[in-house]
Amino acid sequence: MTPPGTPDASLAVPADAPLRFDNGAEPELAARELSDLVELLAIPSISADPARRGDVGRAAAWLAERCRAFGLEHVRVVDAHGSPGVYADWLHARGRPTVLLYGHFDVQPVVDADAWETDPFAPTVADGRIHARGAADMKCGLWASLLAVGDVLRSGGLPVNLRVLMEGEEEVLSPNLRPLLHEMRDDLACDFAVTADGAQPTAGRPIIGVGSRGFCNLEVDVDVADADVHSGIYGGATRNATHVLGELVAGLHDPDGRVAVSGFYDDVRPPPDRAALRGAIEPPLPRTFGAVGEPEWTPYERTTMRPALDVNGVAGGYTGAGPMTVIPARAHAKLSCRLVPDQDPAVVRDLVAHHLRARAPEGVDLVITAGAGSPAYRCPVDAPIARAAAAILEEMSGREARPTLSGGSLPVQALLHAELGVHTVTFGFTREDEGVHSANEFHRLRSVRDCRVAYRRLLARLGQAA
Amino acid sequence: MTPPGTPDASLAVPADAPLRFDNGAEPELAARELSDLVELLAIPSISADPARRGDVGRAAAWLAERCRAFGLEHVRVVDAHGSPGVYADWLHARGRPTVLLYGHFDVQPVVDADAWETDPFAPTVADGRIHARGAADMKCGLWASLLAVGDVLRSGGLPVNLRVLMEGEEEVLSPNLRPLLHEMRDDLACDFAVTADGAQPTAGRPIIGVGSRGFCNLEVDVDVADADVHSGIYGGATRNATHVLGELVAGLHDPDGRVAVSGFYDDVRPPPDRAALRGAIEPPLPRTFGAVGEPEWTPYERTTMRPALDVNGVAGGYTGAGPMTVIPARAHAKLSCRLVPDQDPAVVRDLVAHHLRARAPEGVDLVITAGAGSPAYRCPVDAPIARAAAAILEEMSGREARPTLSGGSLPVQALLHAELGVHTVTFGFTREDEGVHSANEFHRLRSVRDCRVAYRRLLARLGQAA
Repeated sequence: MTPPGTPDASLAVPADAPLRFDNGAEPELAARELSDLVELLAIPSISADPARRGDVGRAAAWLAERCRAFGLEHVRVVDAHGSPGVYADWLHARGRPTVLLYGHFDVQPVVDADAWETDPFAPTVADGRIHARGAADMKCGLWASLLAVGDVLRSGGLPVNLRVLMEGEEEVLSPNLRPLLHEMRDDLACDFAVTADGAQPTAGRPIIGVGSRGFCNLEVDVDVADADVHSGIYGGATRNATHVLGELVAGLHDPDGRVAVSGFYDDVRPPPDRAALRGAIEPPLPRTFGAVGEPEWTPYERTTMRPALDVNGVAGGYTGAGPMTVIPARAHAKLSCRLVPDQDPAVVRDLVAHHLRARAPEGVDLVITAGAGSPAYRCPVDAPIARAAAAILEEMSGREARPTLSGGSLPVQALLHAELGVHTVTFGFTREDEGVHSANEFHRLRSVRDCRVAYRRLLARLGQAA
Repeated sequence: MTPPGTPDASLAVPADAPLRFDNGAEPELAARELSDLVELLAIPSISADPARRGDVGRAAAWLAERCRAFGLEHVRVVDAHGSPGVYADWLHARGRPTVLLYGHFDVQPVVDADAWETDPFAPTVADGRIHARGAADMKCGLWASLLAVGDVLRSGGLPVNLRVLMEGEEEVLSPNLRPLLHEMRDDLACDFAVTADGAQPTAGRPIIGVGSRGFCNLEVDVDVADADVHSGIYGGATRNATHVLGELVAGLHDPDGRVAVSGFYDDVRPPPDRAALRGAIEPPLPRTFGAVGEPEWTPYERTTMRPALDVNGVAGGYTGAGPMTVIPARAHAKLSCRLVPDQDPAVVRDLVAHHLRARAPEGVDLVITAGAGSPAYRCPVDAPIARAAAAILEEMSGREARPTLSGGSLPVQALLHAELGVHTVTFGFTREDEGVHSANEFHRLRSVRDCRVAYRRLLARLGQAA
């Protein structure tokens, strides 16, 4: 649906023309629909925080109850190895395809509470926006897509069979989703999958997400002594954990910008759709965007079609106020990789661990802790679900839709493909400026209406496609 | 006083023979002397903590009052640019030399309160030891040397002229001492200086300190973006502050163990007394002691006669529990150097800053904050004060005394030499196992008596030397 070409030549509209969707004068949410959304947003369902497990469960139960009210069937809270999910279906469109609607009801932690202008869990409506943690990612989108299902059910039934799967661990990279999908694979049989966990640019052409990068992470603890020692007494002859860590970090990349880990690129193949997926990342960009990485790939390509390795944090020694003259005994780093198709997260993680171990000097203990992992995912740009979603966006925007890759990771996509052989697109209406994963997250109420209309139309179109 | 030779050959006793001093059956401290010491130790005079300024002042006032009680004259609290010091003298030994007794009454912070078995500022006496922050460094030694002065004054006057100078900023590297010494240089005129701010090994030969390394420090802030960004969206094309910091840290040393900063060794000359000062550092040693540094120097030499550069702490990005997939916008490091004679702290600091700036990639803001600085110091091993102190130690231990260098920094020594042209030795009785700068600091009450006797004898010997 997108001809190959340079980004500029392929744009039907100027890149800075504001992107707006015609939702056919969809009315505002009813008072009860809005108060329900406020209730959902008020639940601090932070999956990263063990103290919030109860709230994640509360969000699951709340959604199950609403699914029943909308007329969905077989609604139940399912147990993904201790993490609650929600399943529901409506399977009365005999002979029609089956759609899986995926969503997540967990949210990111609030790490910088001081930066928030409103209480992240006291949803606040102002100027057509609703401010709350999880508003943009993705409780509003989830709610809008469920409202659309309810609308169509109320109007006499769905034109397709529908299964709904919602999880509460997406923000921690879905560590228990694979076994759940495997156990439920008969319940989840479907023809295509879609999720509103996606965004639209503020300007230019609308997008559908046809892929995400994989992920793996690990932590490294460098230990050179039992305790910090005095830099006067021992300085000049004693290993310093922060020096060892500095060498290890510096050794992760070659001067030409490539990841220096031996074997890192072994399973990386040239993307078949490099030209079709030519694109750009929405400004504002970090000021060093494009300054590092593989020179033969554009910055957009480096962040979507190519794998990457980043240190996410380092700590060691004394970092309080004033001088403290210690030689640090220990230093710590968190590392994570973004992966492309055919890279195995566990293999890459082991390669990185091996690279680090091989470079640790004698006498240095390196403790490496493996983290999570999920593979990359690609939906063919001409898959029926991708074509259907693109058609809706084109109808609503009057602009050619653009398939894009996300540099981030959405584990469910690859897992659904592996377990069910089904393709998934992200088809969402969050805007790039809505503070996803940041302070002061919000969502436009207008986008809830856009999304609701889009999902009603998508269900109709998928029914016609049968 | 120490013949050149290998460390083993030059030892008159086995290195592991416990070192004990004969103090002539010096009685225990009188009840009032001990309760005074407890009072002094109970004052949390932490110079690094701005909230403890009042306590530093309280310690100064307390010491001034005791100096008056001992019969010292011209006692006053002096103002070193906002930091209180104490001056006192007794100048009635006409025709005799003048001795400057230096001490400090500030203490290290308590950074690991949980590791303390007693309250650091509720001094606890048990099994002949007194447990408190500052017990070993150096309130007990200071008190013992003042008690000795009081003893001799009570017995009819001193055989020498005496000046006492006590400061409250030694633990923060005496930032205001130089101007104070300059302003008071007429009041401080003397022939030699001595301080009880020194230690003895637990075994082998007694030591006097004839030098310390200089010091300079700086802080580096690496800034590559206004805020942390998502490692999915931008990873592979965007600078990471922790990567830049890793490169900078890794670039501080050559693979052969030398400091890689251009010009760092320019002013370093071969030590004239390398053979005379051959020695070793007391065990227990960090397990990587000797594993890094300049191979043509012994580990002891690397930590005393050679300069060193250590990172004291690094921080950047997310280091809490679990993964957080950010590309850190900022990273921070604290660096400090230990210097040898003829290296200028400000020059070396500038060389390090220049080295870092020259290696910062384009688009990276490097903010470098200069810290404190003090030059190295060497007392000739045959200086009269060194000979006198060694003679006392030899009398009391029955073993040949050994002049040693400290790898740490004691700014007052170089400053006294620069301002007054006078040499200083450290002549103290703290033991290496007493937790200086660590949790559970303590001091042996036996050592207070040893020190008191030693300083009485030192005053007598210096009087004879006239």
